[in-house]
Amino acid sequence: MRHPQLNSNGELQHLLTIEGLPRATIMHILDTAQSFVGVSDREVKKVPLLRGKSVFNLFFENSTRTRTTFEIAAKRLSADVLNLNINTSSTSKGESLLDTIDNLSAMHADMFVVRHATSGAPYLIAQHLGRVRGGDAHVINAGDGRHAHPTQGLLDMYTIRHHKKDFTQLRVAVVGDILHSRVARSDIHALTSLGVPEVRAIAPYTLLPSGLEQLGVRVFTDMREGLRDVDVIIMLRLQNERMRGALLPSAQEYFKHYGLTQEKLALARPDAIVMHPGPMNRGVEIESSVADGPQSVILEQVTYGIAVRMAVMSILAAN
Amino acid sequence: MRHPQLNSNGELQHLLTIEGLPRATIMHILDTAQSFVGVSDREVKKVPLLRGKSVFNLFFENSTRTRTTFEIAAKRLSADVLNLNINTSSTSKGESLLDTIDNLSAMHADMFVVRHATSGAPYLIAQHLGRVRGGDAHVINAGDGRHAHPTQGLLDMYTIRHHKKDFTQLRVAVVGDILHSRVARSDIHALTSLGVPEVRAIAPYTLLPSGLEQLGVRVFTDMREGLRDVDVIIMLRLQNERMRGALLPSAQEYFKHYGLTQEKLALARPDAIVMHPGPMNRGVEIESSVADGPQSVILEQVTYGIAVRMAVMSILAAN
Amino acid sequence: MRHPQLNSNGELQHLLTIEGLPRATIMHILDTAQSFVGVSDREVKKVPLLRGKSVFNLFFENSTRTRTTFEIAAKRLSADVLNLNINTSSTSKGESLLDTIDNLSAMHADMFVVRHATSGAPYLIAQHLGRVRGGDAHVINAGDGRHAHPTQGLLDMYTIRHHKKDFTQLRVAVVGDILHSRVARSDIHALTSLGVPEVRAIAPYTLLPSGLEQLGVRVFTDMREGLRDVDVIIMLRLQNERMRGALLPSAQEYFKHYGLTQEKLALARPDAIVMHPGPMNRGVEIESSVADGPQSVILEQVTYGIAVRMAVMSILAAN
Repeated sequence: MRHPQLNSNGELQHLLTIEGLPRATIMHILDTAQSFVGVSDREVKKVPLLRGKSVFNLFFENSTRTRTTFEIAAKRLSADVLNLNINTSSTSKGESLLDTIDNLSAMHADMFVVRHATSGAPYLIAQHLGRVRGGDAHVINAGDGRHAHPTQGLLDMYTIRHHKKDFTQLRVAVVGDILHSRVARSDIHALTSLGVPEVRAIAPYTLLPSGLEQLGVRVFTDMREGLRDVDVIIMLRLQNERMRGALLPSAQEYFKHYGLTQEKLALARPDAIVMHPGPMNRGVEIESSVADGPQSVILEQVTYGIAVRMAVMSILAAN
Repeated sequence: MRHPQLNSNGELQHLLTIEGLPRATIMHILDTAQSFVGVSDREVKKVPLLRGKSVFNLFFENSTRTRTTFEIAAKRLSADVLNLNINTSSTSKGESLLDTIDNLSAMHADMFVVRHATSGAPYLIAQHLGRVRGGDAHVINAGDGRHAHPTQGLLDMYTIRHHKKDFTQLRVAVVGDILHSRVARSDIHALTSLGVPEVRAIAPYTLLPSGLEQLGVRVFTDMREGLRDVDVIIMLRLQNERMRGALLPSAQEYFKHYGLTQEKLALARPDAIVMHPGPMNRGVEIESSVADGPQSVILEQVTYGIAVRMAVMSILAAN
Repeated sequence: MRHPQLNSNGELQHLLTIEGLPRATIMHILDTAQSFVGVSDREVKKVPLLRGKSVFNLFFENSTRTRTTFEIAAKRLSADVLNLNINTSSTSKGESLLDTIDNLSAMHADMFVVRHATSGAPYLIAQHLGRVRGGDAHVINAGDGRHAHPTQGLLDMYTIRHHKKDFTQLRVAVVGDILHSRVARSDIHALTSLGVPEVRAIAPYTLLPSGLEQLGVRVFTDMREGLRDVDVIIMLRLQNERMRGALLPSAQEYFKHYGLTQEKLALARPDAIVMHPGPMNRGVEIESSVADGPQSVILEQVTYGIAVRMAVMSILAAN
């Protein structure tokens, strides 16, 4: 069975995961994003590509920050945006996820941006839309459980390409709570697809998922070893609940072993860039002087994130 | 005293209730809606009829679903839409309902879409606007207590007309919790005004209001009897709180007697249509195979609902 | 050190406080507002001055009412508006205020409308933006702690000028909970800057801040004395929490001594105007017959408030 994110011509119908996405599709998104970077610098930050389209932000899990990035992207494309926080709404009235989707489709939704605590929810929606009459809306996964966060993966790739040009000569380290991170998973799939020869995962045993080696990832539990000579460092956010839980002794202990300090950063290549999907826990996974230092490209990631989301939306709307 | 929803020329100033609305006014709304059905199918789903108008969604009772339908309708008419969930806002600061309205009127509001738990609140607002200087905003009742939900009633009429053409030959059954349902009340008034010769109400004794016979409605407590030879079945949502309360033995028991199954549906005319205002409780008031079956027009109701709301808004704005 | 709200040419970069704002700047805002009063009366209430700009309503303290005034003003200027209620969002994820600002700046925000429970928060943001690369967004203080509410102060001045023309012949009384009121503080600074010769503060001892005399304000604890021959009465809202607290005996007692009744109003000049920032506690700080009476300009304040906010936004965007 075909993955629902590509149609029979191999064109992107939904963006659900980077896993299995052809290299050419990723590159096309990055190239398109490049053309949108300038839009946000203009006096009038708007293009009419999605004028008269209805984009629904369906956030079953609250995230003002991520919702805002998609809302800006859609508005700069001139779409009509509707925000639905669904935890307090119809589902509390006992309506099923797919009934909600059917209803919004019947209102002629053009695009669903879906964040959901359950892995696979956006996939389920896309699959369902493929089966029903008039189900021609596009789905963008804005983060589902521990599974995927493909727009974050793509904006990370955009940022890396911007600074390093060629993916095929790089060493990239992903550091932190890889076990629970949908960002890590999306980044690893993207890096592999784009031909990065050495992807490293650095984390304590308790935060390492199984199966990384099969993806071609080199695993390190010693951060100093893992950072040696890397070109790119992707720090992950440590969820507060992990710090309180049984997986880690304390935030201080974590910072000591896996926090990115200037001293540890010096082990990487001198032109290494430092990335973080935000929001940061300063003093837990990253030292403030590194977060705000000359090698940090963390705020650029945010800027490129808008362009990448505009690119994904405009590509989907055109297909 | 004149009802505030019509002006001295009999033109619609507010939409508060279908009760007492002239047949010609209802038909004019349905005809206008018909012209808007196509707008949502276009590449650019927008017309400039309400450009530069300010539409306020005043939801004193939370309903993402209903709010969304009005928000889409207003945005497709190019209005500026402002969403105010007022339970957590000014009223918690002790400001009265009418002070809130005066304030928003002073900001040059053009239209208020009001949902309120108290029956009559939109009427109160419309009456108040008629008394104050500059109170020329229009009020649309988006559901008030157990009283009325006129846009739902109108979209139900649109759906029936679309499928059955002529109202004057129909048997229509409204089934379920009629006692607590503003939808039922609006539908019964609309059906009667449009000349439907036989309107039936089907419910257990505990969920039947008094006075139905005076409205010309035939009452049934046996669903099989009530469904016999009807052309249209309007199922009502059973509120969760009823199921837990003293009015009903259990959801299972309710489904057995008043749930619409394929077997019960077979008692109606073979071309009968099945309607539901949503959100549905599958397995409580309706069987899934009926909800998704060939006689169901439930999702069409949603689609026509946008067109009907666009029609109401554009008619009010023009008057 | 220069106050961050003015640039080196003395042009307004941010609106943080009326304290220290040059008289000419205030008058320029009022004159600009005058040109916007007509926009809200038009058939199409929109001008394209902020088209393609992104305005972020950052409400760290919930206020639907104030947020709505800024949202309308921005939309009538054709801006894209993004509402962020931040109590439930990133800050609950442990992200700092300035990291949030950096993030939104990286999305190319053009304007931040900030309400915060902490005095000085908008100042902190403006100062921070001045230090970072690309920090060219403008900040409007929409109320910070007990400190300032400059747009309220400006709309109050607009209202006074509209009715009294000349500031330099006026007696103005500010009445009520001056101690906790950011509105009172902004009004007093504005009145003084505009040359009002006699500003009076009327309140019980427990609700009077120290230092009023140094600002040139005459203090009264007897309302009848304080109101004698004034041209303008600015009533303040009594926060519910004060009524319950130790500072006041009861709402009834407060009304008796400091509530504005028709009888007390008769002590002012016969053409005195009555103002209130809203939302009003009728029967606590103001009698209903006064609030709705011929001398009340309370709803005009709301109307002029939209024009004043449009003026501030368009001036900032142009600088």
